[in-house]
Amino acid sequence: MKKGRVTIPTNLDVVPQTLEILDEWGADAIRDCDGTEFPKELKDTGSKIYATYYTTRKDNEWAKAHPEEIQQMYIMTSFHTATEDKLEIHLMDHLYPDMLAVNTRDDIYRWWEVIDRTTGEPVSTELWSYEEETGNVVIRSAKLFHEYTVSFLAYIMWDPVHMYNAVVNDWKDVEPQITFDVRQPKTKAHSLERLRRFLDTHEYVDVVRFTTFFHQFTLIFDELAREKYVDWFGYSASVSPYILEQFEKEVGYPFRAEYIIDQGYMNNTYRIPSKEFKDFQAFQRREVAKLAKEMVDIVHEYGKEAMMFMGDHWIGMEPFMDEFASIGLDAVVGSVGNGATLRLFSDIKNVKYTEGRFLPYFFPDTFHEGGDPVKEAKVNWVTARRAILRSPIQRIGYGGYLKLALEFPDFVQYIKEVCEEFRTLYDNIQGTTPYCVKRVAVLNCWGKMRSWGNHMVHHAIYYKQNYSYFGIIEALSGAPFDVSFISFDDIRENRELLKNFDVIINVGDADTAQTGGENWIDETVITAVREFVYNGGGFIGVGEPAAHQWQGKFFQLDDILGVEEEHGFNLNTDKYNWEEHRDHFILQDAEGEVDFGEGKKNIYALPETEILIQKEQEVQMAVKKFGKGRGVYISGLPYSFKNSRVFYRAVLWSASAEEELYCWYSTNYNVEVHAYVKNGKYCVVNNTYEPQDTTVYRGDGSSFQLHLEANEIKWYQI
Amino acid sequence: MKKGRVTIPTNLDVVPQTLEILDEWGADAIRDCDGTEFPKELKDTGSKIYATYYTTRKDNEWAKAHPEEIQQMYIMTSFHTATEDKLEIHLMDHLYPDMLAVNTRDDIYRWWEVIDRTTGEPVSTELWSYEEETGNVVIRSAKLFHEYTVSFLAYIMWDPVHMYNAVVNDWKDVEPQITFDVRQPKTKAHSLERLRRFLDTHEYVDVVRFTTFFHQFTLIFDELAREKYVDWFGYSASVSPYILEQFEKEVGYPFRAEYIIDQGYMNNTYRIPSKEFKDFQAFQRREVAKLAKEMVDIVHEYGKEAMMFMGDHWIGMEPFMDEFASIGLDAVVGSVGNGATLRLFSDIKNVKYTEGRFLPYFFPDTFHEGGDPVKEAKVNWVTARRAILRSPIQRIGYGGYLKLALEFPDFVQYIKEVCEEFRTLYDNIQGTTPYCVKRVAVLNCWGKMRSWGNHMVHHAIYYKQNYSYFGIIEALSGAPFDVSFISFDDIRENRELLKNFDVIINVGDADTAQTGGENWIDETVITAVREFVYNGGGFIGVGEPAAHQWQGKFFQLDDILGVEEEHGFNLNTDKYNWEEHRDHFILQDAEGEVDFGEGKKNIYALPETEILIQKEQEVQMAVKKFGKGRGVYISGLPYSFKNSRVFYRAVLWSASAEEELYCWYSTNYNVEVHAYVKNGKYCVVNNTYEPQDTTVYRGDGSSFQLHLEANEIKWYQI
Ligand SMILES: [Mg+2]
Ligand SMILES: [Mg+2]
Ligand SMILES: [Mg+2]
Repeated sequence: MKKGRVTIPTNLDVVPQTLEILDEWGADAIRDCDGTEFPKELKDTGSKIYATYYTTRKDNEWAKAHPEEIQQMYIMTSFHTATEDKLEIHLMDHLYPDMLAVNTRDDIYRWWEVIDRTTGEPVSTELWSYEEETGNVVIRSAKLFHEYTVSFLAYIMWDPVHMYNAVVNDWKDVEPQITFDVRQPKTKAHSLERLRRFLDTHEYVDVVRFTTFFHQFTLIFDELAREKYVDWFGYSASVSPYILEQFEKEVGYPFRAEYIIDQGYMNNTYRIPSKEFKDFQAFQRREVAKLAKEMVDIVHEYGKEAMMFMGDHWIGMEPFMDEFASIGLDAVVGSVGNGATLRLFSDIKNVKYTEGRFLPYFFPDTFHEGGDPVKEAKVNWVTARRAILRSPIQRIGYGGYLKLALEFPDFVQYIKEVCEEFRTLYDNIQGTTPYCVKRVAVLNCWGKMRSWGNHMVHHAIYYKQNYSYFGIIEALSGAPFDVSFISFDDIRENRELLKNFDVIINVGDADTAQTGGENWIDETVITAVREFVYNGGGFIGVGEPAAHQWQGKFFQLDDILGVEEEHGFNLNTDKYNWEEHRDHFILQDAEGEVDFGEGKKNIYALPETEILIQKEQEVQMAVKKFGKGRGVYISGLPYSFKNSRVFYRAVLWSASAEEELYCWYSTNYNVEVHAYVKNGKYCVVNNTYEPQDTTVYRGDGSSFQLHLEANEIKWYQI
Repeated sequence: MKKGRVTIPTNLDVVPQTLEILDEWGADAIRDCDGTEFPKELKDTGSKIYATYYTTRKDNEWAKAHPEEIQQMYIMTSFHTATEDKLEIHLMDHLYPDMLAVNTRDDIYRWWEVIDRTTGEPVSTELWSYEEETGNVVIRSAKLFHEYTVSFLAYIMWDPVHMYNAVVNDWKDVEPQITFDVRQPKTKAHSLERLRRFLDTHEYVDVVRFTTFFHQFTLIFDELAREKYVDWFGYSASVSPYILEQFEKEVGYPFRAEYIIDQGYMNNTYRIPSKEFKDFQAFQRREVAKLAKEMVDIVHEYGKEAMMFMGDHWIGMEPFMDEFASIGLDAVVGSVGNGATLRLFSDIKNVKYTEGRFLPYFFPDTFHEGGDPVKEAKVNWVTARRAILRSPIQRIGYGGYLKLALEFPDFVQYIKEVCEEFRTLYDNIQGTTPYCVKRVAVLNCWGKMRSWGNHMVHHAIYYKQNYSYFGIIEALSGAPFDVSFISFDDIRENRELLKNFDVIINVGDADTAQTGGENWIDETVITAVREFVYNGGGFIGVGEPAAHQWQGKFFQLDDILGVEEEHGFNLNTDKYNWEEHRDHFILQDAEGEVDFGEGKKNIYALPETEILIQKEQEVQMAVKKFGKGRGVYISGLPYSFKNSRVFYRAVLWSASAEEELYCWYSTNYNVEVHAYVKNGKYCVVNNTYEPQDTTVYRGDGSSFQLHLEANEIKWYQI
């Protein structure tokens, strides 16, 4: 049996078992656990040792001694209506009192904003003040029946992740860990010294795993300690007058709290980003990368590797942006929720290796009597495997309390098989690019910065409003396409860029960053896309693609997509095109039925459009030709094996490549084929938990019948 | 038996039968039929005689002699994409060739517009020309992959109503009737003379029924003679350079075709009207009313009455606007489709009487073997009766071929009963205002001009996209409320206006004229409405009320309605309020279940809101308090007796008037009570086709049990 590529957790109470599991799973790395000492006996097993390092917390003494350098976040109050001249707004309403403290240390008139939300105008600082005793902002001469909000700075007195763990695990008498801001001068000096001290005292550690470099994503709790607001990609907890003054100097215009507050929407992933927010993100990337490099360099100085845990912070550490490469990290480890979350780190360039932390964590929520950890592990592994086969990670690993896992021998056995399967897979792929049928680009406002993160609000969390869109991203994560994520800015910079792709995809609701809103009335953007399709490209729009009300249209690419959304403005026009064409190439494996998830209402087809599916005169799927190119409209497409196949066919059809279907292909959509031509290998993989039969087509069009056991993967020579 | 208040049709072939029916139904007026001579024998029965008069057609000789004064309409071509420098657009594509003729007589560079729809800019007249031979506009130096449209003037060579009749009835060898423009100088002189000639030769006529005064609503047929575009309230067929030059002079700014074309949306009823279109409507009202008055004066000169058939034209004849009163019409007759269409004319002031033309018309589509004209008549009568009891018409009548009706003795008997019921009803009401529980105002962009016409595209036609909104208007047409229709302009002119109402209603999709769009970010409007509710008013929003994306909100009145619509921007915010309150006052007769029709997706409640009904975490109905006032949100409410009751309770609750429920009230929602306090009468009416039992509450809160037969109406003394 081969060894390696696997990381396991350990603890003081499982030293001999750790050794056994190291052997049984072929693991070659051990990670410590939060709050425990690493077992002395395991320091010299020959395995690599990972140690978690908390840059921004676990040093309350420092934080308390330097309260002015505690990490801050911008917060906006709720809307308050003025029903008399004087309006009082209590800032800490509906916020957890121990988590946040209003910052009155810095000039509130410089850094806070009171905004008349009825007009959108800031209220003159002459007209409001803050009363320390009541905690209220008092607005004088408020305009009757106007609504007001206050944007203010608050210190983060309890690290939100620490608070989350304390609340969820019902920890008693825990001292809240204060988050300090490593980017401020005294804390920076202290933090670099503190890191050296850690390295000096942890000689046995091979890999320093940084948990949050400097800024945690936005996570706020309400007065009942319930989650109130979460934005995995949020930047609002990365602000302080100290760095905002640097920002001002760099961009050359005055900072406004509103650039972060964004009407209370906090520049979330669905908001079309403003110039100022993009400037702020770019500034943070440069500054954070610079400082992160200083820390990584120190780690290297000690002859150790620097690893980042990806997911607790994107601020400045955006892994697909250029600055990230300059940091010099050795590795990134990420939690695996599904295919898309896997590719969030497996696609990272410029690190030596990436590692996936697989589910379930060895925690009592799963590992209890009656629990079925094998099932969870199977689902997680099989879901992620599709994506690994497209973009391999270099290592896998598990977390939690090893002791709990050991009580489930069938789990121990299953993970052993996973480890072996992973190593075989890794060896067969050998870092080559798998065969790609088509080059597709997902077009939105974020482009490569949010590669694979589209339609995610928090890590792999379901939302009724976006699962029908996220399905496209998840399908792509394991599909045989060369996938790029491009932005409207990219097209504006270089419209020739589109020549690199066969198919462009635009997915989401109208007037969001995911579809682009007003970007579609930029003549450069829309003519570039029209030209691309006219000359033979494909365009797939899902939901309300390219939609923005302008000049007689809501769907700006109705000429390519063949559909329009009824907002009442077109009721006067008679619509005669309702005939379905369920025998279309795209639907041939779907037997004419598709789950559109939430779908869309009020979509109708233009006269020259071919409707594939409509429900009660609401079009769900349609196709149209435009010049030499083709457009496909889909109302929504939640992830499933069947939908993944429908989407695959849609990509081929839109690229006028129907004849390329029977190439590295399985007729049964529960089974997928991936070819690594350079290595002379290909595999056939059963994504389901039942046996499957299929016909497998090789790259030359020859085929054979195949039976696969549940979850089975079979490797072949080309 | 009483007589009167009923009009019947006649024909040469049913003279003795006409006399019998006059007697049996107690009719006192006879109308002629299109294309027949009025029977000599009926000229002296003592009944009033109505004659239909066609102001704008049935005089092809004149039209052909004066082609420059043929009626015109503005047409926009479809969108055309430039794929090379030169772009040709064929104007008559997808238009019925015999109906329209391109007007090249007037200066095309002055009156047409070629628009780059990608930028929204008109193309310089230097850059395009029209080729008579090909019928194409040729654009030179078109911008690649921009889209273009041409707005042009066309003569109406076949009156669309005449064409419709010819196509539907498959008339052979019919000569298309050309529509001439009575507002142009030669045709005006000719038309006044022609009217006098008609009056001179039709001495026996008592009432001249004008069918279309001068301008028909927009109705266009495609190349297959199918309806292509219909807008009952459309103004696009009322244009000619002659009157547009007058318009320019009056408003003091240059006219643009785009003011009528409106991006191709043609200023339909869902479009938020532009200043220029409102100016144009006002201009047309003044000019049309002036000329209509000339004609009416001539009719009066001859000692006859002038009646207008309402529905073939709104242009300039808007019956709820001030100019209408100046015309001096004696009567308006309208077709009855439902309660709302009845009130479209029963609410008209400043005429001596209004008359309802009831269904079914005596046409072979209903009056054939196996047909059930009694059923159609019952549905029509019972549906309209609700509205008549609130706002009575003075006469009823029927149309079509009397001969056909006579073959159905049960129909003849049923209509006799209707006539008697109507006369009793009329006598009991005696023109008094029925008891009104509350004063409600429907607020939109059109205000009183479109009273009762909201969410109508054509006369009483069903559309999937608006029946869930129209249900509110239909419910109101028979509800015991004093109903007003007000516009945002009305509030801007006088915000005190709102003091006249108990409840404001806003119904429809976001960013349409029905809900108001950007009007909600006008601080005058929004503060006036907030103040109104804060001081105790009610606000009922249906669909996407007061919605426009602005300053952190989509629903601008979320503080009153308690709900917001998710567009992705609020997914970060945790939502804990999902509990339903199905025991609420509003739902007490609905047993907790309501048909919301198309409803709305993605509506969530704010924390302080009381959700009445949510489906799979999408709120359908919710209530909230705001100051002393109350808001109610409903996702949609198609018309039904049950929904009408739900809405009635919503009005009472929102007005904090729950205790007023048991006043002129029936516990069974299929039965309604109307009180005419001044006359000392009240009635109880069964709206269904089955017997009903109920408890009836009088105005003093006393009650009694009652059994009603199907459709029965019972009258009582107070
Ligand atoms: Mg509020
Ligand atoms: Mg939307
Ligand atoms: Mg909408």
